[in-house]
Amino acid sequence: MTDIEIAQDVKMDKIVKIAEKIGLTEDDIEQYGSYKAKIKLPLQIKNSTKRKLILVTSINPTPAGEGKSTVTVGLGDAFTLLQKKAIIALREPSLGPVMGMKGGATGGGYAQVVPMEDINLHFTGDMHALTTANNTLAALIDNHIQQGNALGIDQRRIVWKRALDINDRALRKIVIGLGGPVQGVPREDGFDITVASELMAILCLSENLHDLKARINRIVIGYTHDRRPVTVKDLNVGGAIATLLKDAIKPNLVQTLAHTPAIVHGGPFANIAHGCNSVLATQTALNLADYTITEAGFGADLGAEKFLDIKTPVLKKMPDTIVIVATIKAMKLNGGQALADLASENLNALKKGIANLKHHIRSMAQYGVPVVVAINRFTQDTEQEISYVQKVCAEMGVQALDTDVWAKGGQGALELAQTLIKTVEQPKKFKPLYASNSELTEKIQTIVTKIYGGANVEYSKKATNQLKRFKKFGWDKLPVCMAKTQYSLSDDPKLLGAPTDFTIHVKSFVPKLGAGFIVAMTGNILTMPGLPKHPAALDIDISDDGKISGLF
Amino acid sequence: MTDIEIAQDVKMDKIVKIAEKIGLTEDDIEQYGSYKAKIKLPLQIKNSTKRKLILVTSINPTPAGEGKSTVTVGLGDAFTLLQKKAIIALREPSLGPVMGMKGGATGGGYAQVVPMEDINLHFTGDMHALTTANNTLAALIDNHIQQGNALGIDQRRIVWKRALDINDRALRKIVIGLGGPVQGVPREDGFDITVASELMAILCLSENLHDLKARINRIVIGYTHDRRPVTVKDLNVGGAIATLLKDAIKPNLVQTLAHTPAIVHGGPFANIAHGCNSVLATQTALNLADYTITEAGFGADLGAEKFLDIKTPVLKKMPDTIVIVATIKAMKLNGGQALADLASENLNALKKGIANLKHHIRSMAQYGVPVVVAINRFTQDTEQEISYVQKVCAEMGVQALDTDVWAKGGQGALELAQTLIKTVEQPKKFKPLYASNSELTEKIQTIVTKIYGGANVEYSKKATNQLKRFKKFGWDKLPVCMAKTQYSLSDDPKLLGAPTDFTIHVKSFVPKLGAGFIVAMTGNILTMPGLPKHPAALDIDISDDGKISGLF
Repeated sequence: MTDIEIAQDVKMDKIVKIAEKIGLTEDDIEQYGSYKAKIKLPLQIKNSTKRKLILVTSINPTPAGEGKSTVTVGLGDAFTLLQKKAIIALREPSLGPVMGMKGGATGGGYAQVVPMEDINLHFTGDMHALTTANNTLAALIDNHIQQGNALGIDQRRIVWKRALDINDRALRKIVIGLGGPVQGVPREDGFDITVASELMAILCLSENLHDLKARINRIVIGYTHDRRPVTVKDLNVGGAIATLLKDAIKPNLVQTLAHTPAIVHGGPFANIAHGCNSVLATQTALNLADYTITEAGFGADLGAEKFLDIKTPVLKKMPDTIVIVATIKAMKLNGGQALADLASENLNALKKGIANLKHHIRSMAQYGVPVVVAINRFTQDTEQEISYVQKVCAEMGVQALDTDVWAKGGQGALELAQTLIKTVEQPKKFKPLYASNSELTEKIQTIVTKIYGGANVEYSKKATNQLKRFKKFGWDKLPVCMAKTQYSLSDDPKLLGAPTDFTIHVKSFVPKLGAGFIVAMTGNILTMPGLPKHPAALDIDISDDGKISGLF
Repeated sequence: MTDIEIAQDVKMDKIVKIAEKIGLTEDDIEQYGSYKAKIKLPLQIKNSTKRKLILVTSINPTPAGEGKSTVTVGLGDAFTLLQKKAIIALREPSLGPVMGMKGGATGGGYAQVVPMEDINLHFTGDMHALTTANNTLAALIDNHIQQGNALGIDQRRIVWKRALDINDRALRKIVIGLGGPVQGVPREDGFDITVASELMAILCLSENLHDLKARINRIVIGYTHDRRPVTVKDLNVGGAIATLLKDAIKPNLVQTLAHTPAIVHGGPFANIAHGCNSVLATQTALNLADYTITEAGFGADLGAEKFLDIKTPVLKKMPDTIVIVATIKAMKLNGGQALADLASENLNALKKGIANLKHHIRSMAQYGVPVVVAINRFTQDTEQEISYVQKVCAEMGVQALDTDVWAKGGQGALELAQTLIKTVEQPKKFKPLYASNSELTEKIQTIVTKIYGGANVEYSKKATNQLKRFKKFGWDKLPVCMAKTQYSLSDDPKLLGAPTDFTIHVKSFVPKLGAGFIVAMTGNILTMPGLPKHPAALDIDISDDGKISGLF
């Protein structure tokens, strides 16, 4: 059976019943159909005293992903089977990969959040609200210039890009405003995918509606002809943009196939954005459950680093354990085995590629939080391969649990859950990676050395000039959000395993003052993905009675 | 009090209670919060035997509109006061005017549909689903070309444009795919506002999910190098696009301030699209209520003509009465009074401008349906002005009812409702304006002569060439959807009143094979509006506890 067939085969509980499980009444939620809801804010209810947080991350993945969401879902169901009060907190999927290559982001097999189709398609409209708010701001900027440009915005230096939640390479670089004076002022522009937009980051980092609006007002949309930053506040449209996000800011409640409550909210990619679900979602889960299990995107070098260095300071709660998901497939890929051959046993490739897992274990251990490995099993994996990984981890003093959630759901992660119930109680002392008041370049060097295992950072001429201006504007000590390929610890997607002595190339910076960080663009990373030769859209269909097929 | 203050001041009924009123159980609807719902399809329940349909249209409006929605809402409440089972069926607002100039589209004063903020903002996400489906198709087209162009699409002849539900003139004419071979194939493109998109028309004309997908597959997205049409079916993505509209196709249920059930679904503009809410919404209302009151956009030359010539053949139900809304202000504007002076009495301007009302009465009467005039009263209107209009209408054998729904809600339209209860029972014979199998040019000439009161049609060289190709493709007998300014019966927005002997200039055609009609672009009409000097967005705000202000 395919994922969508498994999902369609399970009878969901009504969402009011799921809400009840975590102490929420019908009045605490806004239903979106019978199986989805938004949780009203501010949340008053605090049932939980335990407030244990488990962060699920992974090694550098294959193009199909490591199954972090799947493990997170299965783990949640395992906690439920053990009669523990757990909530999982996931990011919401982007339609770009759903229609493109990677597919949805609701887990897989018997470890899924449902309704799978709705969550992967429009869900409760958060992405669309963000897209609309983003492009409304863009239209207001161009209109300001067209109507006389009282603020003196230099149209060559507008940094606010348009956005769509679609993989569309043709919109990366465009020229707008053509056709004569009535159609606006011609200028270069481009679309990012919505999940990479600053508004997505703001939504995910805001503590409440007040903070949301304040952050929106701080957004720098571009510069004047004399190079002063222009903000949303200067344009006087922060209220309208915040209004467009009034519902998007509320966390979404759904369930797993085994009826474990799941909060699915916010969805920045981890390669081109900060890769974590919303602070409000995680806080809500922490307040309502004893165990909150959440994930951060792609490998630990991306999502987890950003969770720990960008999200944790706002959340004011460190993880109690970090779970690193590893697949035999990905380790073999990191060990040099060809993508097409990953299904066949290859201990040599595994022995070489396990360096990637070892690297991530060491890098995560630096934060002072217990680390556990979850081997996300595929049917083709052999016992020899699994036990080899467990042996290597044991030598490092780290438990590596064989999990089989795709085929068995929560039953496949019972041992992992039992282990975590112990590790989250261990005494721990969170050690931030870098001092918050250190220079931007110092922060980047620290991430490159301590998290990527690299040696140097090389700044382009453009990046160097930007750094000078940031100093002038007082932006030189902000947190950094690295934009980097997910396939390698370096900025070269072909450099697999655990490379050393490499240089990270910072091509440019994108200041995101509303989000509160500076994005460093490395290598050839793109903020708008493209579609593959055979996009997933070609296989998606709907029957006359509304049954969807081909989503994965 | 402002509209939004009045709306926020009223205690709404829960949407399940509104549904109950029209015979729908909790299982027949999908709640979107407590006060909005989608009605599940297919609808089995048929309570109504009366099935009377009242179409509300207007004279050529002022830039603020004539208050058709307001009269429709007030009329619905008047029927409720008279203990008649009525449903109003409106179009859903576009964010373009909400953030731009005209404001929302939920009525005004004490004749509004609520929750006003939600309906005017994201509502149940229909617009966003359409935008996403539209742009996913666009991305798939450009990707098809980038990946080898197996269909041989001529990138200079792609007619499928991108869309956003925003007023953004800078996106009217753009160049995409810049930046080298990796970023796609450069070509000219442009964005339309979503309400003008073919998918919006398809959504509004589809009878069910099967019809929706069939229509999507018939969309012509462009032409090959040897000038053959390329359809969505050729691209093999009709299933994915229909899947993205699986929820948008379901009619939305809300309520008026007086708790009259309101179905608000589909929202094409009437100047650049066909201007009517969805066939499914109107059918649903007809099946559930004795009286369905619906509106069509802008003046009777636009929305009503398209309702009667494009929607009625699909709906298979003619209106039982047509209500023409007229304001003293608009008649004075049509009579030459300056826009800034419309608040002051001016019988001379009124006497001249009433020609516009007289023209619309005559043009609507041609369809063989009873016509009634509703004078939508403003506080500044004088008794002399009102009674003059009533006298002129009486001389034409038409009743003109003084309505005051903005200030009085349903109470302000009781007399109008009582009149309509009689007129809908009158024997009638619907006379189509043109033979469905007549030539496109013949249809256009008929509309220009009989509806606009013009003399000739002039085709540009481009339009003439297009007509030749349409003949070759067998598209020359399709219905026509006129794109024309709403301010004048002619294609010149400055030619007010009831001009005669004018020429309509058809600049080009846009074939919409999925919608099933050909759009004729006249005058200088634009399918993407711009923002004004002071966009409404500047005045919109939200408080820390979520209260919205400045929406109108």
